[in-house]
Amino acid sequence: MKRFLLLLFLAVANCSSAMAKPQQNTEEARQFPRNIIMVIADGMGPAYTTAYRNFSDDPNTDMVEPVIFDDIFVGNASTYPASESGYVTDSAAAATALATGIKTYNGAIGVDVNKQPVESVLQRAKTLGLRTGLAVTSQINHATPAAYIAHNESRQNYPQIADSFFDSRVDNQLIADVMLGGGTRYFNREDRDVTAEFINAGYEFAEQYDDLLKIDEGSNVLGLFAEVGLPPALDDPKDDRLAFLTKHAIRFLENPNGFFLLVEASQVDWAGHSNDIASVVAEMDDLAQTLDYLQSYVAAHPDTLVILTADHNTGGLTIGADGEYHWDPAPLHRISASVTAISKDLVKAADVESYVSDKLGFTLNAQETAQLEQVKLLSVEEVEKVLKYIIDKRTNTGWTTTGHTGTDVEVFAFGKQSQLFTGQIDNTDIAKHIFDLLDRRTSS
Amino acid sequence: MKRFLLLLFLAVANCSSAMAKPQQNTEEARQFPRNIIMVIADGMGPAYTTAYRNFSDDPNTDMVEPVIFDDIFVGNASTYPASESGYVTDSAAAATALATGIKTYNGAIGVDVNKQPVESVLQRAKTLGLRTGLAVTSQINHATPAAYIAHNESRQNYPQIADSFFDSRVDNQLIADVMLGGGTRYFNREDRDVTAEFINAGYEFAEQYDDLLKIDEGSNVLGLFAEVGLPPALDDPKDDRLAFLTKHAIRFLENPNGFFLLVEASQVDWAGHSNDIASVVAEMDDLAQTLDYLQSYVAAHPDTLVILTADHNTGGLTIGADGEYHWDPAPLHRISASVTAISKDLVKAADVESYVSDKLGFTLNAQETAQLEQVKLLSVEEVEKVLKYIIDKRTNTGWTTTGHTGTDVEVFAFGKQSQLFTGQIDNTDIAKHIFDLLDRRTSS
Repeated sequence: MKRFLLLLFLAVANCSSAMAKPQQNTEEARQFPRNIIMVIADGMGPAYTTAYRNFSDDPNTDMVEPVIFDDIFVGNASTYPASESGYVTDSAAAATALATGIKTYNGAIGVDVNKQPVESVLQRAKTLGLRTGLAVTSQINHATPAAYIAHNESRQNYPQIADSFFDSRVDNQLIADVMLGGGTRYFNREDRDVTAEFINAGYEFAEQYDDLLKIDEGSNVLGLFAEVGLPPALDDPKDDRLAFLTKHAIRFLENPNGFFLLVEASQVDWAGHSNDIASVVAEMDDLAQTLDYLQSYVAAHPDTLVILTADHNTGGLTIGADGEYHWDPAPLHRISASVTAISKDLVKAADVESYVSDKLGFTLNAQETAQLEQVKLLSVEEVEKVLKYIIDKRTNTGWTTTGHTGTDVEVFAFGKQSQLFTGQIDNTDIAKHIFDLLDRRTSS
Repeated sequence: MKRFLLLLFLAVANCSSAMAKPQQNTEEARQFPRNIIMVIADGMGPAYTTAYRNFSDDPNTDMVEPVIFDDIFVGNASTYPASESGYVTDSAAAATALATGIKTYNGAIGVDVNKQPVESVLQRAKTLGLRTGLAVTSQINHATPAAYIAHNESRQNYPQIADSFFDSRVDNQLIADVMLGGGTRYFNREDRDVTAEFINAGYEFAEQYDDLLKIDEGSNVLGLFAEVGLPPALDDPKDDRLAFLTKHAIRFLENPNGFFLLVEASQVDWAGHSNDIASVVAEMDDLAQTLDYLQSYVAAHPDTLVILTADHNTGGLTIGADGEYHWDPAPLHRISASVTAISKDLVKAADVESYVSDKLGFTLNAQETAQLEQVKLLSVEEVEKVLKYIIDKRTNTGWTTTGHTGTDVEVFAFGKQSQLFTGQIDNTDIAKHIFDLLDRRTSS
């Protein structure tokens, strides 16, 4: 009731100026986006977008050609968590900031520093009658999507968070109408079959990407395409996995009252944690394809707003290292699998040199082959280390950590009201602007 | 004459619309800045500004308070050199891009890939009758300032470049009216006393900072305050060295026809090359003080434009490293000298532990003291390495190189026409916009 009165007040307040210009109410309604699509590129620090531009460069021209990120860049955001967690955020605190507009401690999912639940923009959207959804490449109950749906004191409580996806309600409604990503391990459990509960509640269920093709627009959908996260972009036979999921999520969500969709390029972060530069550019390419699709969608549906940012910077990636003024993306075009996948299979390979040269697309030298022959006897992890070292040397890529760093991240936006996100902002400002847009579209 | 006809044409072309609105000619003249101040923070990649914000944070509040960089941030710039030099620029190619608007090879000073001279914005400003100057913390013939004045195939030709500062002319005039920084080694040489030639040409000469106080406004001034670069910010008894030089440069340059001033926080880069995080934040603070002054100057002189950017990213600095989600700037507030200065004196110190603890402001543990005792016997360089390791461990700072990396840099601008520099641009666009502003102010 309080909310209703507030909205009524805002509507009346708007009227005073509307009376002077009779068209303004309609005009004003047109100013606010009907659909909001929030895209999070987990871990994508500033070096990732420059690396992707260099990777995409046509070496036969003098110019390094712009990529889609250059067309839509609008500013930077600070990412620090609540002061008790210092200056370097994890994905849970950052996702909670982006989803709810408050700073919290590292590990927190949709709760504040006192472990109290905080409303997310997705929850507000559902309250206001929009359809809601998410499309991610991690398990759907991973930190980032979880912060938009659940409230939990720890991101590690995966089964509890999966339960929340069904149990949490807004005005007695399930919170998300469409959920696409991985996570059967957490949703199809022996102790509780959350997937079955969604199906009983009328949700369509998909377990293969192409199952989505058979589901009607406007449906409620749970799509879980992997036990945990989806395969890495380099290893997934589907070469546009996030664009595909995003396209179908939008098809299911579209309706006259609008929708809120969270899209996450979750594995940019995982590639960064692995210090796997070939996977970094492959995940960035998967994201770039998604943005290409979203640009065409906004062109056809100009009442849509798309915001893209990262939650933090992963790996301390640098373009160039070790005193050399040099970075060479050329080998990355030929690497055909993630370092993890190559390493797992390498221990079984008879001829190390030919197996690895085939997968990496360049010939190993005698020293590199000898090193791999040696660590092959130790463990997959040791093989991974050597392979990463070889790729980093060939490309001259630098890393400072297998964790996160605290540098500000870039912000990108296009479509209706995208100008709100320009300049230097804080990650909490993104949620604040979305709350404001959601409320004002309803009150106008 | 050709230029005059072009200007006449542009003036007449402008008239057609001016006739419709009688005030427009005056209005249009008012649209273009009378004074342009280009500030380059050499080597200041995105992590530097976030590090400085964290360093400046009041730990007693929940918020990390904004710093001046946050108020003036407008976008990002790509920095890659001409394709023959790959994706990672040096300061010479980057300065040539920022000064002239063209891409060139690493090492080039104001020349293109064919080693042909290219006009700089400072030279154009002089041609158009503005007063011109520079205030830097390196030697004044170092790569960045050199690219605005000289044309040389190699940045390493320091004596030749110093000669060019006097010998190069625009319309028979000396190019720079005010030059403040270091460099007596190159200007007061045995084989040629360039300083004396400047004095004979009517320039005031200053060799102590305070000499500037005695020089009248409107004077032409050569100020060389060190043999090579100025002392590092942490070691210089003057705690606002760049702000002081900038303030006086402006006092000497101010005139009704306007001025172009290049300011360089040269040693942000040198601190990055040294991987000396305490010097990084001290040089950033020296720059921040300069920007504070420039903000007050623009408030009083709104017909002034200030642009700030970096030429590239140095050191691969990261906020956090080695898998830990943590960065601690607190020790940096207590370090009272550059690592180089501490190391030089340490080899002479009787009591290593008390000497270093005093300079660093925190107590060394037994292992650290033992390590220093050991390397003290080897060389100053080995002492430097250990000291940097100790400081990096305490703060959890990461580095990937003693050279440069290729990540885009931030762009900042305020004052008249500052909106031109917003969004994603290339470093050459900065020179192109300045050329355009210089030409249009003259033609309007």
